[in-house]
Amino acid sequence: MPSRAVGPLRDGDLLAALDLGSNSFHIVVAQRVLGQLRVVDRLRETVRMAEGLNALGGLSPEVCERALACLSRFGQRIADIPPRQVRAVATNTVRQLRSPEAFLGPAEAALGHAIDVISGREEARLVYLGVAHEQPPQDDQKRLVIDIGGGSTECIIGRGFTPLERESLQVGCVASTRRFFEGGKLTRKRWNAALTEVALQFQQFAAPYRSLGWDEAIGTSGTHKAIGNICASMKLTKGAITREALAVVRDRILQAGRIEDIDLPGLSDDRRPVIAGGVLVLEAAFDALDLSRLQVSKAALREGVLYDLLGRGGADDPRDVSVAALMQRYGVDAAQAARVEATALALFDQVAKAWSLGAEDRAVLSRAAHLHEIGLAIAHSGYHTHGAYVLQHSDIAGFSQQGQRFLAALVRAHRRSVPKSAFEMIPDRLLANARHLAALLRLAVLLHRSRGNETPAGLQLQAEGEKLVLRMDKRWLQARPLLRADLESEPEDMLGLGINLKLALD
Amino acid sequence: MPSRAVGPLRDGDLLAALDLGSNSFHIVVAQRVLGQLRVVDRLRETVRMAEGLNALGGLSPEVCERALACLSRFGQRIADIPPRQVRAVATNTVRQLRSPEAFLGPAEAALGHAIDVISGREEARLVYLGVAHEQPPQDDQKRLVIDIGGGSTECIIGRGFTPLERESLQVGCVASTRRFFEGGKLTRKRWNAALTEVALQFQQFAAPYRSLGWDEAIGTSGTHKAIGNICASMKLTKGAITREALAVVRDRILQAGRIEDIDLPGLSDDRRPVIAGGVLVLEAAFDALDLSRLQVSKAALREGVLYDLLGRGGADDPRDVSVAALMQRYGVDAAQAARVEATALALFDQVAKAWSLGAEDRAVLSRAAHLHEIGLAIAHSGYHTHGAYVLQHSDIAGFSQQGQRFLAALVRAHRRSVPKSAFEMIPDRLLANARHLAALLRLAVLLHRSRGNETPAGLQLQAEGEKLVLRMDKRWLQARPLLRADLESEPEDMLGLGINLKLALD
Repeated sequence: MPSRAVGPLRDGDLLAALDLGSNSFHIVVAQRVLGQLRVVDRLRETVRMAEGLNALGGLSPEVCERALACLSRFGQRIADIPPRQVRAVATNTVRQLRSPEAFLGPAEAALGHAIDVISGREEARLVYLGVAHEQPPQDDQKRLVIDIGGGSTECIIGRGFTPLERESLQVGCVASTRRFFEGGKLTRKRWNAALTEVALQFQQFAAPYRSLGWDEAIGTSGTHKAIGNICASMKLTKGAITREALAVVRDRILQAGRIEDIDLPGLSDDRRPVIAGGVLVLEAAFDALDLSRLQVSKAALREGVLYDLLGRGGADDPRDVSVAALMQRYGVDAAQAARVEATALALFDQVAKAWSLGAEDRAVLSRAAHLHEIGLAIAHSGYHTHGAYVLQHSDIAGFSQQGQRFLAALVRAHRRSVPKSAFEMIPDRLLANARHLAALLRLAVLLHRSRGNETPAGLQLQAEGEKLVLRMDKRWLQARPLLRADLESEPEDMLGLGINLKLALD
Repeated sequence: MPSRAVGPLRDGDLLAALDLGSNSFHIVVAQRVLGQLRVVDRLRETVRMAEGLNALGGLSPEVCERALACLSRFGQRIADIPPRQVRAVATNTVRQLRSPEAFLGPAEAALGHAIDVISGREEARLVYLGVAHEQPPQDDQKRLVIDIGGGSTECIIGRGFTPLERESLQVGCVASTRRFFEGGKLTRKRWNAALTEVALQFQQFAAPYRSLGWDEAIGTSGTHKAIGNICASMKLTKGAITREALAVVRDRILQAGRIEDIDLPGLSDDRRPVIAGGVLVLEAAFDALDLSRLQVSKAALREGVLYDLLGRGGADDPRDVSVAALMQRYGVDAAQAARVEATALALFDQVAKAWSLGAEDRAVLSRAAHLHEIGLAIAHSGYHTHGAYVLQHSDIAGFSQQGQRFLAALVRAHRRSVPKSAFEMIPDRLLANARHLAALLRLAVLLHRSRGNETPAGLQLQAEGEKLVLRMDKRWLQARPLLRADLESEPEDMLGLGINLKLALD
């Protein structure tokens, strides 16, 4: 298992989770108390990111400005919390952007913190985690959790704290309202056509979900809360959503004829513009999954992010669990990974100060060492490229998309020549760290190429700017002419990382 | 397991294997007798493909002409053997070509038969198979087999008929002689520098090979036969190659000073120009693997190709064994694969005649049906693309590179829209078949999207040119609105395959 350089949190520590959703932005601040979390603050702003997304993946200037203004306000709230205790995640709308960096650059500057773009299935995992902590599950009971967001909908079946199935669909309350009820017009004909189309999305996984089954169904997110409120205000239920109640709500919406005329007890003005799409998606889910009743949970993605943050750095860091699972699936030689890790971290510790590398960087290097040979399961030839492909494209629980790309770049660059394209997905602010960690991984891999248990003698590494000096015992190396030949050709490849490597033999 | 549409061979059938090597081209013709093979003819021509390869991956016109002339002669020899009983494989030099198709097009025309480009590790598997059949192995004994070709060298450890480790190195007798002894000059200094460089290649896997170990070491290919001959002619051994004998041969080569002056007992004029590189590579292998003695085997790649051909279509078709192994590694839902296969083959049988599809095409469709969901192990999103990546880049025993690309194209095109690039790796002569098989796979996948055990009722498929009519029971389909919606949007995607699909409901 990768080493845990970032220690677990302590009681009294504050944690904050930000959720840059397609409908609204949320922040929740909590304090660690007896190992658990106590929420101490919540903020929510309706930004409606999804409204600003055009068909080409561009974001309208007004919506971008709205988002940045909100983030600079949220930034004040987290300014005094140590960065490693804060996590901001962005979901579907940012996933859909043609150039997410064009938004993320100013957004991270406004917030004063990195923003992780997470995949739909990672979002599903975190939603489930939030719900499971909010309403502790009963032993062995299976739960279906549905989260209807502004741009995407997540469906999870889990048992206890473990998700068993995770799906993410490209339908949400903002996007569906925009797409199916253009101009705000609501007709039964439009509704039925839209229902078939949305149901097709659910159909993709409805059969295996139904055959796996669940003991209770839970809806989360603003859409569910709003519909649950309406059901309760209309005295249809006590807050749950039933099939019959949903049909009543849907008919009332259709009777309105236009979105701005929807008038339902318990519906806020803020929710009115997107309630039609939300009810539509939920009706499709009821049909496809053959639901009769849904409980509404207050917990959602942001609570999941908080609990995930709480687990990071501990014995069950979800990222380390994922690394171990990947190593197993792809049959990684764990002994070799451990050798490379040990040397990589020993080298890291010698240059961390000179290169301003921190505990999180060390953890990343450890994970890259564990995963660098993952591509061998595909083919030996070009295995670094195959490994990078797998790491970039896989759904890896616990990682953001940027986190996966960072790991992929290190694996891509760990042997052979390093093309310019290897780091093209890394944002500028992380580029120096990526190049430096790749250099350390390269040296560790090279030194263990014979796959023996021998540790190189008298190894010393010094960094000064982009100059790197590797000192080794001369006599030890002379007895290993092949390693020596390898080391002598390394400086040329290292130039591809912008690093000037010198070999000094004492 | 995929269905075996191509039946096994019968006694009396002739089989032919062609090996387009980097040094020489070989053909061996054998007859099946009591389930075994009896060689009835052999031809060999020294083409020296590797000499024509330039640094940019181009092939010199003289060498290309030499190769084509040889292939047209070989073509006469196989003209009367049914195509499915012939296999031609090309190895390292063709693998290195920048545009292999520019050579393969005319080469296949000259030969009158398809030429499979095989990967280095597949070459290693086939070499081992040839040796294992030529010298049946003793129970439980492990063997190291080394094949030094013109452009690459294969090293295999196996037990019985099963290779345990397979490696392929970019060093061969023609390429090494050209590279290290430019101008034909032989000096000890050049030799030692070259030895270090070649040994580095072996070093990549020497440690795990030595720790796995072997009971006997066998050398195969022309280089080993020539060196074994020299050792016997010089009375150094009775035909085996020992470390001491190899040193004597090497010293005699260096004493000559120039390649054209090499004069060794038992060395043919034909072998003289490339013997220095061959001895160099073998000396590096002796050093890295700590060998003391090597037996020489007459069997090689072409015998392996023959035995592989003999096994095809039978219960142990190596391609089906590989498909099963891939399904297991990537956790494919075998029940769903079987459903899709059954429907795909039922549709195939209805249009095979109209589309001139044969038994081999049917076997390929079956394999694609088994593997179409392989990419789900990476991620659900874009899994057809991930599956295609894995199939294109993996070392898959039993498949040629073109065979893997063909499968990859079918998997790539089995859902969503089909970009032009999906088929860009498929040679023109196979393009129509690829498009047609992809269409059948798409329909089968679509019909089983609900993953239930239901078989669509009254399914009929008719093809006429690029028009395809799918007939279904109207009432059956009406009860399945989601499938119907899916089917209605399929004709648009099918246009990407150049196929005009019509839905007819009775």
